[in-house]
Amino acid sequence: MIKTDILIIGAGPTGLFAVFEAGLLQLKCHLIDALPQPGGQCSEIYPKKPIYDIPGYPEVLAGELVDNLMEQIKPFQPGFTLGERAETIEKLDDGTFIVTTNKGTKHQAPVIAIAGGLGSFEPRKPLLENLSVYEDNGVAYMIKEPEMYRGRKVLIAGGGDSALDWSIFLADVADEVTLVHRRNEFRGALDSVEKVQQLKNEGKINLMTPAEVVGLKGGRKLEKVTIQNTETSEEVDVTVDHFIPLFGLSPKLGPIADWGLEIEKNAIKVDNSLDYQTNVPGIYAIGDVNTYPGKLKLILCGFHEATLMCQSAYQRIHPDKKYVMKYTTVGGVTGFDGSKKEAPKAVVKAID
Amino acid sequence: MIKTDILIIGAGPTGLFAVFEAGLLQLKCHLIDALPQPGGQCSEIYPKKPIYDIPGYPEVLAGELVDNLMEQIKPFQPGFTLGERAETIEKLDDGTFIVTTNKGTKHQAPVIAIAGGLGSFEPRKPLLENLSVYEDNGVAYMIKEPEMYRGRKVLIAGGGDSALDWSIFLADVADEVTLVHRRNEFRGALDSVEKVQQLKNEGKINLMTPAEVVGLKGGRKLEKVTIQNTETSEEVDVTVDHFIPLFGLSPKLGPIADWGLEIEKNAIKVDNSLDYQTNVPGIYAIGDVNTYPGKLKLILCGFHEATLMCQSAYQRIHPDKKYVMKYTTVGGVTGFDGSKKEAPKAVVKAID
Repeated sequence: MIKTDILIIGAGPTGLFAVFEAGLLQLKCHLIDALPQPGGQCSEIYPKKPIYDIPGYPEVLAGELVDNLMEQIKPFQPGFTLGERAETIEKLDDGTFIVTTNKGTKHQAPVIAIAGGLGSFEPRKPLLENLSVYEDNGVAYMIKEPEMYRGRKVLIAGGGDSALDWSIFLADVADEVTLVHRRNEFRGALDSVEKVQQLKNEGKINLMTPAEVVGLKGGRKLEKVTIQNTETSEEVDVTVDHFIPLFGLSPKLGPIADWGLEIEKNAIKVDNSLDYQTNVPGIYAIGDVNTYPGKLKLILCGFHEATLMCQSAYQRIHPDKKYVMKYTTVGGVTGFDGSKKEAPKAVVKAID
Repeated sequence: MIKTDILIIGAGPTGLFAVFEAGLLQLKCHLIDALPQPGGQCSEIYPKKPIYDIPGYPEVLAGELVDNLMEQIKPFQPGFTLGERAETIEKLDDGTFIVTTNKGTKHQAPVIAIAGGLGSFEPRKPLLENLSVYEDNGVAYMIKEPEMYRGRKVLIAGGGDSALDWSIFLADVADEVTLVHRRNEFRGALDSVEKVQQLKNEGKINLMTPAEVVGLKGGRKLEKVTIQNTETSEEVDVTVDHFIPLFGLSPKLGPIADWGLEIEKNAIKVDNSLDYQTNVPGIYAIGDVNTYPGKLKLILCGFHEATLMCQSAYQRIHPDKKYVMKYTTVGGVTGFDGSKKEAPKAVVKAID
């Protein structure tokens, strides 16, 4: 059982910044995210895209913003349960909650902050009859540990940045990389498209276009993939260890929708006039996952919501203590790791 | 008459960021600030101090944050009325407001956003009988244009960073710099104290401690300052053109307190459940100047409030238009100056 003060569901920018604000209040945080790394959409969907509306950053790449947030929260040593989806919640008699993931990991905390963005990102799956048979037995929709493909035969399907970038990356790792796309044209960053062209010319990527995967064959494990040329309808079987369709991710609120929280337009209703708490005391929702009158799904709004949520969480966890806010410029930042950042102190010194 | 869409009173970080969010909605802004430069407290009080709680910045100097915000809003060409204090407001029949400063500058806008921080910074004044006679005739409490002191005899009083830093700066500009402080010890950054020591040794700063200014003499203009040694009570007259007491600034809500807005604990009450509007429709209050249940006087909260305010202002200014929010990552930023920032576009390109 993982125990913490604030259990944050969703490790996107809002969830990450909540760790900092909680840390200033000496509260510990643990984050759960279905994606294999922190940063949410910023890391998974558009790490190399610039954002222009983060206050104080005329321009910042989404991936850089996440790196900076990770650096900012480092002193507060957050825990992470990554690649697992929060499934169920139960409330104990002592008022604390237990959240269990799809892999059975249990977390206990007096405060839950749902920072789930647009929901957990579910991969778009191809329509293939026996697809589910091979899930985790050769078929994967996300690449969590690239090293597991070393020396293996990998078939990637897709025509966007993910398919291009992972084909490039795995060309150096896997024994064989085949890239299948139903058009001849790929849609992605120019340099990615050019790199795939080059690797194809060098024989390091086996390109099959215009084509689709139309069948999966094997025993307990995936052994062959049937590929159909979409112009000629000709079919061919390719021997593979792994089939990775990268057709994009689509966000789903998922199991959280069944937690008894008031939902409106696929988002969780919160009290924006006070602390972004849901209808269940002790459960808050911050960032893109919540809704209230005038809500804007902007990262900068999530930062504010996370901050006010932490103040309310503090009062819930320490009902008898009165917290006096200190500005970081005045009081500095004292990490749980013993680190201390503070402004250079003024000296009092005679001039003679 | 200066005309604009949103008239922002206060050019601190919150007011500055409002320009950006308004710009995304194609609304123009003009800012009024009593201080001689934008940035509010960050520029005037602690430009060299680090802030640790700006989201995405593990550490940023207050002055740097202001520079970055100025860079971020540049495409939206804000207007500035600096060194003037907003004094009176009147509402015209057409629903727009006219705000007049203490120097008589008039501004007209359909929306007013008060981003006045802790108020306009009023200098702490020494208790001297005929002080007001010489205000603007030799006595000043802020240095707006350092060049006006070139070749003049300047007397600075004070023992903190402002007194130290301006003495250092003017030692190169003025004909004579005298620094008077009632103690021998100065309180400031170590390097400033050391620099003043050095300039004093070189004869470039005339240091008088422990001493106080106890009298002002002259005709229409200031001519002499009487200085008393606080240990020996000995008095001496020093011939000066300028006397600049730098005893710190203390924030006062000032004339805004009389604008008919609901005030609570020296802050303006706003509707935090929707758009940070005050009790007067069309007048908003954002950042440290406002109050609501759970309010935190943090810069990051001001950013959020500014953003929601702009959405509401848009609806007020364009009641018939429906604004569809576009993410800057997707839609880029189009400046009023014709500039355009946007993410590199994906290419659609065949691989053969």
